[in-house]
Amino acid sequence: NVHVATYPYILIYLFHFYKYNISVFQDVHVMIFIGFGFLMTFLKRYGFGAVGINFLVAATCLEWAILVLGFFHLHDGTIYIDLNSLLTADFTAAAVLISFGALIGKTTPTQLVLMALIEIPIFTVNEVIGRRYFGAIDMGDSMFVHVFGAYFGLATSFMLRRKDVSTPKEGSSYRSDLMAMIGTVFLWLYWPSFNSGGASGDDQHRAIINTYLSLCSCCLTAFAISSMVHPEKKFDMVHIQNSTLAGGVAIGTAADLMIQPWGAVLVGIISGFISVLGYAYLTPFLSSRLGIHDTCGVNNLHGMPGVIAGIVGIIMAAVASESSYGSSLYSIFPARAPSEGSEELLRLQSQIPELEPGSGISASTQALYQFLALLVSLVIAIAGGILTGLILKIGPLQELHTDDLYEDEKYWILEEEEEKEGSEFE
Amino acid sequence: NVHVATYPYILIYLFHFYKYNISVFQDVHVMIFIGFGFLMTFLKRYGFGAVGINFLVAATCLEWAILVLGFFHLHDGTIYIDLNSLLTADFTAAAVLISFGALIGKTTPTQLVLMALIEIPIFTVNEVIGRRYFGAIDMGDSMFVHVFGAYFGLATSFMLRRKDVSTPKEGSSYRSDLMAMIGTVFLWLYWPSFNSGGASGDDQHRAIINTYLSLCSCCLTAFAISSMVHPEKKFDMVHIQNSTLAGGVAIGTAADLMIQPWGAVLVGIISGFISVLGYAYLTPFLSSRLGIHDTCGVNNLHGMPGVIAGIVGIIMAAVASESSYGSSLYSIFPARAPSEGSEELLRLQSQIPELEPGSGISASTQALYQFLALLVSLVIAIAGGILTGLILKIGPLQELHTDDLYEDEKYWILEEEEEKEGSEFE
Amino acid sequence: NVHVATYPYILIYLFHFYKYNISVFQDVHVMIFIGFGFLMTFLKRYGFGAVGINFLVAATCLEWAILVLGFFHLHDGTIYIDLNSLLTADFTAAAVLISFGALIGKTTPTQLVLMALIEIPIFTVNEVIGRRYFGAIDMGDSMFVHVFGAYFGLATSFMLRRKDVSTPKEGSSYRSDLMAMIGTVFLWLYWPSFNSGGASGDDQHRAIINTYLSLCSCCLTAFAISSMVHPEKKFDMVHIQNSTLAGGVAIGTAADLMIQPWGAVLVGIISGFISVLGYAYLTPFLSSRLGIHDTCGVNNLHGMPGVIAGIVGIIMAAVASESSYGSSLYSIFPARAPSEGSEELLRLQSQIPELEPGSGISASTQALYQFLALLVSLVIAIAGGILTGLILKIGPLQELHTDDLYEDEKYWILEEEEEKEGSEFE
Repeated sequence: NVHVATYPYILIYLFHFYKYNISVFQDVHVMIFIGFGFLMTFLKRYGFGAVGINFLVAATCLEWAILVLGFFHLHDGTIYIDLNSLLTADFTAAAVLISFGALIGKTTPTQLVLMALIEIPIFTVNEVIGRRYFGAIDMGDSMFVHVFGAYFGLATSFMLRRKDVSTPKEGSSYRSDLMAMIGTVFLWLYWPSFNSGGASGDDQHRAIINTYLSLCSCCLTAFAISSMVHPEKKFDMVHIQNSTLAGGVAIGTAADLMIQPWGAVLVGIISGFISVLGYAYLTPFLSSRLGIHDTCGVNNLHGMPGVIAGIVGIIMAAVASESSYGSSLYSIFPARAPSEGSEELLRLQSQIPELEPGSGISASTQALYQFLALLVSLVIAIAGGILTGLILKIGPLQELHTDDLYEDEKYWILEEEEEKEGSEFE
Repeated sequence: NVHVATYPYILIYLFHFYKYNISVFQDVHVMIFIGFGFLMTFLKRYGFGAVGINFLVAATCLEWAILVLGFFHLHDGTIYIDLNSLLTADFTAAAVLISFGALIGKTTPTQLVLMALIEIPIFTVNEVIGRRYFGAIDMGDSMFVHVFGAYFGLATSFMLRRKDVSTPKEGSSYRSDLMAMIGTVFLWLYWPSFNSGGASGDDQHRAIINTYLSLCSCCLTAFAISSMVHPEKKFDMVHIQNSTLAGGVAIGTAADLMIQPWGAVLVGIISGFISVLGYAYLTPFLSSRLGIHDTCGVNNLHGMPGVIAGIVGIIMAAVASESSYGSSLYSIFPARAPSEGSEELLRLQSQIPELEPGSGISASTQALYQFLALLVSLVIAIAGGILTGLILKIGPLQELHTDDLYEDEKYWILEEEEEKEGSEFE
Repeated sequence: NVHVATYPYILIYLFHFYKYNISVFQDVHVMIFIGFGFLMTFLKRYGFGAVGINFLVAATCLEWAILVLGFFHLHDGTIYIDLNSLLTADFTAAAVLISFGALIGKTTPTQLVLMALIEIPIFTVNEVIGRRYFGAIDMGDSMFVHVFGAYFGLATSFMLRRKDVSTPKEGSSYRSDLMAMIGTVFLWLYWPSFNSGGASGDDQHRAIINTYLSLCSCCLTAFAISSMVHPEKKFDMVHIQNSTLAGGVAIGTAADLMIQPWGAVLVGIISGFISVLGYAYLTPFLSSRLGIHDTCGVNNLHGMPGVIAGIVGIIMAAVASESSYGSSLYSIFPARAPSEGSEELLRLQSQIPELEPGSGISASTQALYQFLALLVSLVIAIAGGILTGLILKIGPLQELHTDDLYEDEKYWILEEEEEKEGSEFE
């Protein structure tokens, strides 16, 4: 019976053990619904769409992801659901919401729900390839969620490109910018839970610390570079809302590795720097020259920082050795454990009885697989996004008029008074 | 000495055990103060009243509930306070805030504080009858908090009915609707903690999963039905703010039971459906024909979904057996444990040494008691609400002028500028 | 090698033990970034500055505090970083953000970052004197964070005093006041985590309960007194946003002590009372007569309630005895443990093997040291603030024009439309 079914009887002990940490789950839940939802309310006339459609799409993702992920991890034809499934579904929703960020204001709710339905199976295939076949690690899901979600969305946006994409409504107001900061700050502060949600014990501890340090230095860098790129040395809210978060993405893959505090701080600085420059120079270029319009600038917040994360992961995998990690090397990089039947495995199992056999690969092979996982994520994301864009252009899926871009009025009941107010909308 | 007194010396072990989970307590605390507070800021001119008076009333409830609940659970004339008392006080405050939802904008702060003082003892009597005398179970407090709070508030509202209750100020603005979404989303995402706050181990795990699933399907249903009932197929913010939450209420009583994922999803769908239809058709009818005005529509968010929860609880109690629940049947339904001195009890205690004797009732008797608890909650709530309404009409309790309805100006200092702005108030 | 370095290998057990509670850490993190950030958005034209500069300054503090605190707790020339370091850095940031509250709208971002760099070392010296040399206890950091931060900021504000400090922009609007309530409510509800973050077991449990009770009674008192001091008996948003929180500060030092529920409630009442009166009468006086301008009124929220906390701590230390605390007396007041080699110590260690020797001081000596810690905190804070003010006046640190006070336009890119709107800004 291939269907959603009973939950296992988890021992109380396990439930309260780190694998099922309610508070970490709830922190990630806040990021998905408050973080992403309010971050996107920066558009002055699209607040309902931002927080409302985010709500609709995210809830769709959670239900669909539990089913799709369940099919990939069947137990005798039965899907098991535990707190970890819910957490994983939340991570999957994040990928779709990142894609949504590239498309917000230019797509109908129907198109977005359809996109979620298509994206999640492709997302799952990519993650299974990366984790199961390549044995790649990615604690904060920077490759599997951030890179994938960003380039999937950008490819879809490219397929849906239109000449009239930039309108005066594609801007923020004072109040909408402030509202968006609710999203930014909640994302920023719960990010250590996001990057450590899949880890436990020491690894979780390191993931929290590294993420915290990277986010702090990224925040400072984003402020500094933001004022530098402006002729009057003013801060730009777009950078503060988004680039301050790039450090959380960029440390993601290596969050639980021994990157050292200075390494985490450095990753934060680099990602903050690149993210602000991306907003200032790259986003306008991509839109005007290549027809890739990116409403929230997900390339600068998730795409490029995610690629940085992948590269940091490659480097850290290449230098990881038993001398620095001790026996935790094999729980962090399962593929590096010696293979079944080898003498080396017996030697290690005499010290660590619960060690499972791996593929016995070297550090450089692990690094290569990290690279392949990053590359494959990019390729599958872009191909999937193109395919999705083609589907979303099919006839019955209504295209928006120029006047309906970045505008709530088309899909939401607004009070008379509100509509009349016009530009005083803020 | 019948007075608030020393706290027990809880063992560290216990403290970190499930019964005293700080993070679950804090999640519920967020729902009470941020969730309820901001959900009610949808009124365009009553934001201070919504979040401010919610704050005042909730804080009153917490202190009063600790005392009142303490009197019902005295230990040698002394009230013991532990983290669980604080959590229970928060649940009690929820009932009063639900009643407040039916009355907001039409009552003075004094009236509301007085209502809290009257409602909490009645609430406690009802819960003691339901839980202690009927042995009814209600994990997410859907009967004891949601049904009780909603119909108590509606009865009070009926007693305070007035002809001029609908004014142009009883509406939302773009900004106030967006602000209210802060409340909605926090309520929605922390609801699994609410429904599982009283459970532990496996039961808690199930309560989280069932609530999550029910809320997701309810959210999707609310969006779908909201656009269906509108002639131009637009979404209505009132539905998104409220009906998306009905699934959390409707799964409450049975949240920790073996309702299966499909059952939880079904409950979410039914409640989302009924809640939106309630807002669209029932609320205007109740107000115009029966004089029951319901500012926030608590009947659609808490009342009817709470009754659904009670019915789901009756069904689940009727089908619960030792074959599906194992020995946890008797910890979930304590009244079904065999009675003192019976052979059956001895047999079970040889397997579960800590089992306490119950009343040895059958599944159908448990279902009957669930029904009685629901019925009694309705009766006591309505009677209590009528009584409270009568008291709130007594002379010195000032009645509001038509112009002061849904208007902060009467009770709050507003800046000159703000008052002048008039309709630009948003 | 005196540099940030490797993290210790914390045992999984320890990590999940009370000393490394992720949820409590995240609660405090929310208070720093959402709580302080949004509380200060009450200024109608300074929302970006409030939440944005709060973000910048807080992130600066976190990185700097980890370094500075690390130098005071070196392990063989190496700084160890664990979850507790991050929590402590958050506490340190709170002190700087409190000082920021006295200065907001009147200082440049550069000045504020510089202030943070100067304040944190002085803060750390003061805390080391108080805790290590005087053996003073202060669970919720009311003396070391709140008193210190408030009077440091006020002294700095005094040094930066100017005639034109009060302008029409130094006010709130309806929407900005409502936004500020997000900050207030999050601060209020996570405060039990703040005051119990450094405690464990029973002590943590008591700290949560006492803080909860004190905050509830403080909230009610603030509402009551706020309406009493107004001629038309209206509530003042300034009091609701700030004075409702004074109870969290005032119970801080003694939060984990056996102050009894009635004691906690009493402390809340007194602090709410004094805080509202401070806003109503003292703040205008200090500004007009003494030139001490206090934008957020930190004297009323952190300063005076912090002094009350110190006094409550003195009283509670004076009456603490082994008969009421049992052997936990010596873990709560380490300095009261008998000194090395004494017979008393041997007697106690036969009961509590892990007991460490202290200084064997009496209750009244402990009370005296509590008093000295409070006094020294005040003196160092004021001296440090004066010094900082002198530095901030040095040439290259730009002074703001009258028109740029409480105004985002100087440091933030605002949309054309927004600037034009002028007084409709809200």
